[in-house]
This record gives sequence, C-alpha cells and structure tokens, in this order.
Amino acid sequence: MIRPMVVRDPALPSAVTIYEVGPRDGLQNESAIVPVDVKVEFIGRLMAAGLPVVETTSFVHPRWVPQLADAAEVIARLRLDGPTPLPVLVPNERGLDRALEAGARHIAIFASATETFALKNLNSTLDDQMTMFEPVVRRARDAGVDVRAYVSMCFGDPWEGAVDVDQVVDVGRRLLDLGASQLSIGDTIGVGTAGHVQTLVRAFEAAGTDAASLAMHFHDTYGQALANAHAALQVGITTFDASAGGLGGCPYAESATGNLATEDLVWMLDGLGIDHGVDLASLVETSVWMSKVLGKEPASAVVRALR
Amino acid sequence: MIRPMVVRDPALPSAVTIYEVGPRDGLQNESAIVPVDVKVEFIGRLMAAGLPVVETTSFVHPRWVPQLADAAEVIARLRLDGPTPLPVLVPNERGLDRALEAGARHIAIFASATETFALKNLNSTLDDQMTMFEPVVRRARDAGVDVRAYVSMCFGDPWEGAVDVDQVVDVGRRLLDLGASQLSIGDTIGVGTAGHVQTLVRAFEAAGTDAASLAMHFHDTYGQALANAHAALQVGITTFDASAGGLGGCPYAESATGNLATEDLVWMLDGLGIDHGVDLASLVETSVWMSKVLGKEPASAVVRALR
Repeated sequence: MIRPMVVRDPALPSAVTIYEVGPRDGLQNESAIVPVDVKVEFIGRLMAAGLPVVETTSFVHPRWVPQLADAAEVIARLRLDGPTPLPVLVPNERGLDRALEAGARHIAIFASATETFALKNLNSTLDDQMTMFEPVVRRARDAGVDVRAYVSMCFGDPWEGAVDVDQVVDVGRRLLDLGASQLSIGDTIGVGTAGHVQTLVRAFEAAGTDAASLAMHFHDTYGQALANAHAALQVGITTFDASAGGLGGCPYAESATGNLATEDLVWMLDGLGIDHGVDLASLVETSVWMSKVLGKEPASAVVRALR
Repeated sequence: MIRPMVVRDPALPSAVTIYEVGPRDGLQNESAIVPVDVKVEFIGRLMAAGLPVVETTSFVHPRWVPQLADAAEVIARLRLDGPTPLPVLVPNERGLDRALEAGARHIAIFASATETFALKNLNSTLDDQMTMFEPVVRRARDAGVDVRAYVSMCFGDPWEGAVDVDQVVDVGRRLLDLGASQLSIGDTIGVGTAGHVQTLVRAFEAAGTDAASLAMHFHDTYGQALANAHAALQVGITTFDASAGGLGGCPYAESATGNLATEDLVWMLDGLGIDHGVDLASLVETSVWMSKVLGKEPASAVVRALR
C-alpha cells in the first residue's frame, strides 16, 4: 500500500488523539436505519483499528433522530469500562438518565456558541443552555462519569454569519467551569479557515484555557477541514474529531456537511510523523465495508484512492 | 452568499497568483471531446472571473490526448498578447513549432523528477529529457516566449515510492538553468504532506532558488492538497496551480487524481485575507456550468456547497 514519505516538523506535537465520531455524528445523518448488529460491528472494527476513543451513539429523543433510537441496545453490547472510552451524547437530564441506566462511563453534551443556534437547536438562550447543562454535568460527575462539551457554530453560523471569537471563548469557559473536561470546538458549517482557527485557540489560551483542553471538530463543507487541522496542530491542539470514511454528510448533497475523514487526517499525521495509533489499512477496510452497507460512496479521498 | 470570516496571518504573503489549469490539465482527463466553442467560453469565463493566468491547451500529439487535438483552433480564438497570459503546454520541439505558429506567447514544458516516470512518460532518461528540452527552451526564449517548467512526481512516484528532495531540487535547477522562468512543483499522485512541502521549498532555497521562482501544483488524491497549500504559503510560496471545480479527476475513480480546486483555494485565501483577484461567485457559476456540460459532479467542495 502506498504511503506518504515521513517528514517530521519539530514544531508540531509528537502524538495526537483521534476522537472517532462516525457511529454517532456520522450515522445520525443517515436516513436508512442501520441495524444494531451493524452498528456494534462498526464500533468494534473502529476499536480494532486502533481508534483510541469512539463516540458510539446519542440518547437524544428518538423522535428527533430515529437512527439512534437504539442507543441503549447498542451500548448494551459494548464493554463500557474497557480501556477505550466509548462516549455517548446526552442532550439533557432525561438523556443522562438513560445513559447512566445503560452504564455509560463517558458522556458528551452539545452546546451552541451562538444565541440563534441555541434557539433553533435547543429552543433556549445561551444562559438557559448553561442552566440546563448544570445538573447534567454535576450528576454525571457525581456518578464518576466524564463529560465532554461540544461547542457548535464556533466559526460561523448560518443565521448570524461570522461568530465573535470572544463569545466562543466565553461559552467554552462557562462549560469548563460547569465541569466539562474537554471542549470540542466545532466548525459546524465548515466555513472556518486556518488563521481563524489559530486565532481562536490563542484566544482560549489568553483567557487561561490551555490547548490541551480543546479538541477540534472540523467539517469539510468548503474543503477546509484538513488545512484547518494542520493549522490547529501548529498551535498545539492534540485532539481531533474525525469520522471514518468522512461519514456524516453526502459529498454531493446541496449542503454537504461531511466531517473531516479520519483516513485523510491519518494520512497527514503519518506524513508528519505524528503518532496516533491507528492502522490505516484496517480503517480503510472498515470504511469500505460501511460504505457498502450504506450504499454510498465514501467521502474520504484516502478511502477512494486506496480501496 | 456565505463567506468565511477574514482573519489575517501577518506571517503569510499578502497576495498570491492563482495559475488556472482547468482548460488544459482538467480537460485532458475527460474522454468525451469538448467542442472548441465550449473550451473558448470556459477560458473566457475564467478570465472574466479574474484568474490572472489560464493555461489553455497542449500541443501534445493528438494521438496521446485526443481531447486537445484542437489546440490550434482554440488558441486562434484567444487574444494571446493581452494582459492575461494564456500559456500552452508544449511537449517537444514539434509541439513548440505548432505553438509558435499559432502565436503562443507563453509555453510550459513537462519534465519528470524521477528516472522511472521520465522513462514511462517521456521514454527518456533524466539527462535525455534535459537534452530534449534545451532547444525547446532556447528557441522559445529567442522568440520572446516565456517558459514555465512543470516538474512532476516531486513527492512520490508510483514506481519509485518516496522521491528524494535533493533530486527534485537538482532537476528543478537544471530546468531553470536552461531558461525556464518558473518551476511548477507537482505532487502528481497527491501523496505529499505539509512537512514534506515545507522541507522541499526550503531545500530549493538552500540551493539558491527563491520561493518566488516556484509554483506549487497539488493533487487532492489523498485529501492533502489544501493543507499542503497552507503549508506552502507559510514558506513563502505565492503561485498556486489550481483547477476550476477541481476538474481533472473523477473524485470517484479508483485512482482519483483531481487537481486542487480553485474555489477551495480561493475560500482559504479569502479567509486569510490574501489577495488573489478572483471573483468567487463568477468562478462557482462557471464551474457549475462546466460540470453540466461534462455531465459530472464538481469535485470542489465549495462549488458543491454554494451551487
């Protein structure tokens, strides 16, 4: 199998953590319901390929995301206290109840950086979302459960346009203050570019939040995801969300919303000599299998080139 | 139309030149023959959208690239001594004769960085390719015609694997010594990554060739093209080859070989506040039109998102 030549850049981190979101963020955009067996196999293959964290599902109300209505069934088939964290998304206290009941040890909450998206997605204000998340985070932590916080619309918002860097930092720091252990800084609509990424990370650092507390979550809607990941590495980011095969958005849909493809990220990290622990060949095989299950072309360039 | 927020990086160049290769490098991979009228309209629309250089066609033997057999007819319809350079590719002296006869004022030659590709593509050795190009460059310059030299397989070669940086520098410098005014450093199979790009540019500079003499020509086969362009900006590259709509490779072919899409590059440059002179809306409109003519989905993420 062809591989990139390794040319290290001593200014970059020597290792990163890839936070795999395919089974949750990827599949939640698929309309045809994927059977529980297939989801469990997908998660198992991702773990076997070396992904160090795999977000598995969401305890969102089944009415909103029918694809993930089987969340409890899926995680019942996984070893939740093993060495690989298998987080689940939890929208609110009711979701937390279900997640705890099902034995989740890692949860993620989903916040907005903008007032308009808070209103559209959560039917709340930014202040109210904090009020809503407070008991979720507190109860999770009391149960010994780790909490990650997604912050969405950090670079642009379809209604508000450009999003102020300071506002993102403020929302993020409030979530950390509630008790989240990590922020996933999301470019939900994929508009951000490399300088914006670096400026936002530096603004967090200036406010006292280290790059080590941040993960970057890029969407490739405007083709910027990997360039932004390169820029983020340069300012010390060491956790990247990615989706196997680029699952999570049809590359040919009008509003392509695909996640950064895990394989494309792995290719870059391999070329830069940055450790990540993922076996690219196994991962490509998994994404090819999944694309056949879904009857869709993979969005990852690496998968298309190597299959 | 949604646009990225502008966040300048003072370490990057303030302006770049986009060298548009769609009509030649893009179309040469299309099997269905595109009519002369359509090609001329495509070139005209690219010029109207503000592309400062448009490579128009190739005087390669029609047997090898039937799509470009109409090279003389196409450039007969263009104003070759206008303010926008409209280069043509010239494979050898016979091609040069045809290009000069047709009135070309700017030509490009196509060299290999590796022995194996020189043999496969040019049926020659690296030394013999220099011997072959010597009269082409000399006669072009004697006629007042500017010569650009493509150097292909600069990051990896399908037969040889990784390509030695020093060998690329050596081949490139020999082409400049012959009289080429600019090198286009090609990642023909798209395997290169960001650190490799920066190392190669620095190696050229260490050998006395300034970044201003280099253009970067990235293919997105493994999804690295734009990240590599960002890395190249950081080491002072100010000329980038790109193809409108990502024309030049089917994104779903086994060996996807698409060029960096001009629109995706423009989006990044806009976000970084780097001048380029291209009107994105007109360019997207042109690529949408061309994708309809070809009956293919555009490979550019920006085009898919904005159409």
